[in-house]
Amino acid sequence: MNVLITNTLIIPMTGAGLTVRGDIGISGERIAFVGRRDASFVADKIIDGSNHLTMPALVNAHTHLAMVLMRNYKDNLPTLQEWLGEIFPIEDKLTPEDVYSACRLAIAESIQSGVTTLCDMYFHTSATIQAVTEGGVRANLGLTLFGDETVSRARIKEHEAALKAGHAHSSGRITLSAAPHAIYTCTAGTYHLARAWALENDAVLHTHISETRKEVEECIAEHGTTPLMYLKRIGALDGVKCLFAHGVHLSDEETALLAELDAAVVHNPSSNLKLDCGIAPIASYKERGLSISLGTDGASSNNNLNMFEEMHIAALLGRLGGHLSPYEVLKMATIDGARSLGLEERIGTLEAGKEADLIMINLTRAHLNPHNDPFSLLVYSAQASDVDTVFCQGKILMENRNLVHYDIDALVEDVNARWAAVLSR
Amino acid sequence: MNVLITNTLIIPMTGAGLTVRGDIGISGERIAFVGRRDASFVADKIIDGSNHLTMPALVNAHTHLAMVLMRNYKDNLPTLQEWLGEIFPIEDKLTPEDVYSACRLAIAESIQSGVTTLCDMYFHTSATIQAVTEGGVRANLGLTLFGDETVSRARIKEHEAALKAGHAHSSGRITLSAAPHAIYTCTAGTYHLARAWALENDAVLHTHISETRKEVEECIAEHGTTPLMYLKRIGALDGVKCLFAHGVHLSDEETALLAELDAAVVHNPSSNLKLDCGIAPIASYKERGLSISLGTDGASSNNNLNMFEEMHIAALLGRLGGHLSPYEVLKMATIDGARSLGLEERIGTLEAGKEADLIMINLTRAHLNPHNDPFSLLVYSAQASDVDTVFCQGKILMENRNLVHYDIDALVEDVNARWAAVLSR
Repeated sequence: MNVLITNTLIIPMTGAGLTVRGDIGISGERIAFVGRRDASFVADKIIDGSNHLTMPALVNAHTHLAMVLMRNYKDNLPTLQEWLGEIFPIEDKLTPEDVYSACRLAIAESIQSGVTTLCDMYFHTSATIQAVTEGGVRANLGLTLFGDETVSRARIKEHEAALKAGHAHSSGRITLSAAPHAIYTCTAGTYHLARAWALENDAVLHTHISETRKEVEECIAEHGTTPLMYLKRIGALDGVKCLFAHGVHLSDEETALLAELDAAVVHNPSSNLKLDCGIAPIASYKERGLSISLGTDGASSNNNLNMFEEMHIAALLGRLGGHLSPYEVLKMATIDGARSLGLEERIGTLEAGKEADLIMINLTRAHLNPHNDPFSLLVYSAQASDVDTVFCQGKILMENRNLVHYDIDALVEDVNARWAAVLSR
Repeated sequence: MNVLITNTLIIPMTGAGLTVRGDIGISGERIAFVGRRDASFVADKIIDGSNHLTMPALVNAHTHLAMVLMRNYKDNLPTLQEWLGEIFPIEDKLTPEDVYSACRLAIAESIQSGVTTLCDMYFHTSATIQAVTEGGVRANLGLTLFGDETVSRARIKEHEAALKAGHAHSSGRITLSAAPHAIYTCTAGTYHLARAWALENDAVLHTHISETRKEVEECIAEHGTTPLMYLKRIGALDGVKCLFAHGVHLSDEETALLAELDAAVVHNPSSNLKLDCGIAPIASYKERGLSISLGTDGASSNNNLNMFEEMHIAALLGRLGGHLSPYEVLKMATIDGARSLGLEERIGTLEAGKEADLIMINLTRAHLNPHNDPFSLLVYSAQASDVDTVFCQGKILMENRNLVHYDIDALVEDVNARWAAVLSR
């Protein structure tokens, strides 16, 4: 199908400050043109973009989709460790059906806030694959590992066939990662297995790193060095593309290493504040050449999957002793997010030939006028609910706030019933 | 008119953790009952509240309404001082018609995010009075003062009749403040005049204080003491109810003084981050007994008037080395906000006999389920766009997202035309 979006304010994210007023053509899965209309293009559907801003869809580079179940649950615990102490036992009670239902809700919420690419780390992978496939979004799905080599070998055996099949049947929408949880929950052997699996399957190595000072201090006490240097020392990072969630407390030695590696740090500012982990010095990381993407983390430590809020908070925190421009923040949530998942040739900007993942934002809102600077507008003034229309790989997932694949009332009822059942187990 | 809201999840804000499932009756301007229905109550209109959470409307305790014009204008300047250097010359070009139009937009935006009470400090007061009166909201309006005693005496003479008349004809919806801008823009003589005018008119003294370290350092260099102690020393605070915007950098001596005074600090976390002023240590202030309310500041340093975002950011920042519970943050945005304006007997909680300023939040959203803790839900998960229905003094200002008094498209067009004209002056 050919879709034409007419006379829209385009933020292609191909250059700082660059805006274009014009048309966008979508042909099948891809963008046919951006700006000036190709005269030979015949549209099957025309969308009036005149009151809209059109930009690349957002990339949520670190989340745990099914944790929407635990939204606002055990919410006011002071530290990450105490919170995990409450969350892990509940997670053990979840069934694949619970995870499937929760993922559907999480995907609907994500689409409603302009996200089409999600990087997930969780359990019951087959359930997540099903939800992602049906939802029409793009996801990097982690083969999540905990514990030692024996346990991890079994988990890989259990889940890899489903992950490979999910990837194979997804038109490239599903990509993979090996996802050892963290150095304080996984052995060196598990990291070695994860690296080998990632290399074998063209997957990313996705792990939590230096989320708290406690993690760093305990690593130094146990291994004589900081978390990332420890992973390097044991050879876990050799030759593999890495995605490091959090990175709140990185040493200078670690930032220098990261600038050399094919690696990105995923900034999760809400979660880091909420669990009192601190504020990652992103402006300083970027100055040192690090690649930074943005994530919401799971909804239970956030407590939503709203990338507009995440951009807003990242921009505000970026003012603390540094300077992170709205354009830089938008890059983190689009092209740099795509790059961190190895998708930069396919999505993340609006350019002819790229796959059509894009969102249209309704500019006729009280809180979006006058516009003045559209980059500041997106980061500081806009709300998730300003996203009207969402395309992923050329298909419409939401149009004028109507979700194509979901009935929210039914979804909410199903998730609440399942969560009540989990609590009573 | 009698309005009945049935079977709703009520957050009355009369006690930590308190929720009630029941009905709310509104009779004329006031709340008739909360929770159990009064059998003699005859409703003219019934609203099904079963999928809604109903709570007090929000109080934005520090803003400059008309600054929506400068939303995202000159946006990436590193400091408050440089930013003011760009903003002040533009403000000199504004006409009363510009301010009226901008205030209408600001009031519409505020209602859409659940705010019915606004504390404003700006110019062209008559224009603001007209917009507030027509908008049906509640406002504390400042007689804004800059410069020395001579200038201030003239300003008082120019504006006080309109302010007094606005108050007199507002059914109590308009209250007043004397609003000397700041110690670095006003002389001691102006503060004395402001205090005298506030006492004479049962008004609040509303001023910016200790917003930046630079302000504090310059005050110490010039006056040998910190800003608040300077105001106390010159007698500007004697016997008058005070509202101090920002208070990012208060000394221990100043917090001790504030705990004694009939005074509140208005926390403006977004603006303070955005203009690199720092993070006010609110949890610590509250431990020392300070009364704290919450504000957005002007839209040009925020860049919106969204109190849900402000609550969210305040809650997240409150986790930094302290503990600010979601209930405490909600108090700052409701009853403590009301108290800071002297309105605690009239609004800020849902109780029989109080004036009916309340909002209904639609709970059937993907991002609000499962609810788990409703207080965390409101502060961490909810968005302004979840507010469906808004009452102020018993009158409906928005129902199912439809604004009673405003056509947003027309408003947006008018404001943009006026702003273009301002820029071309």
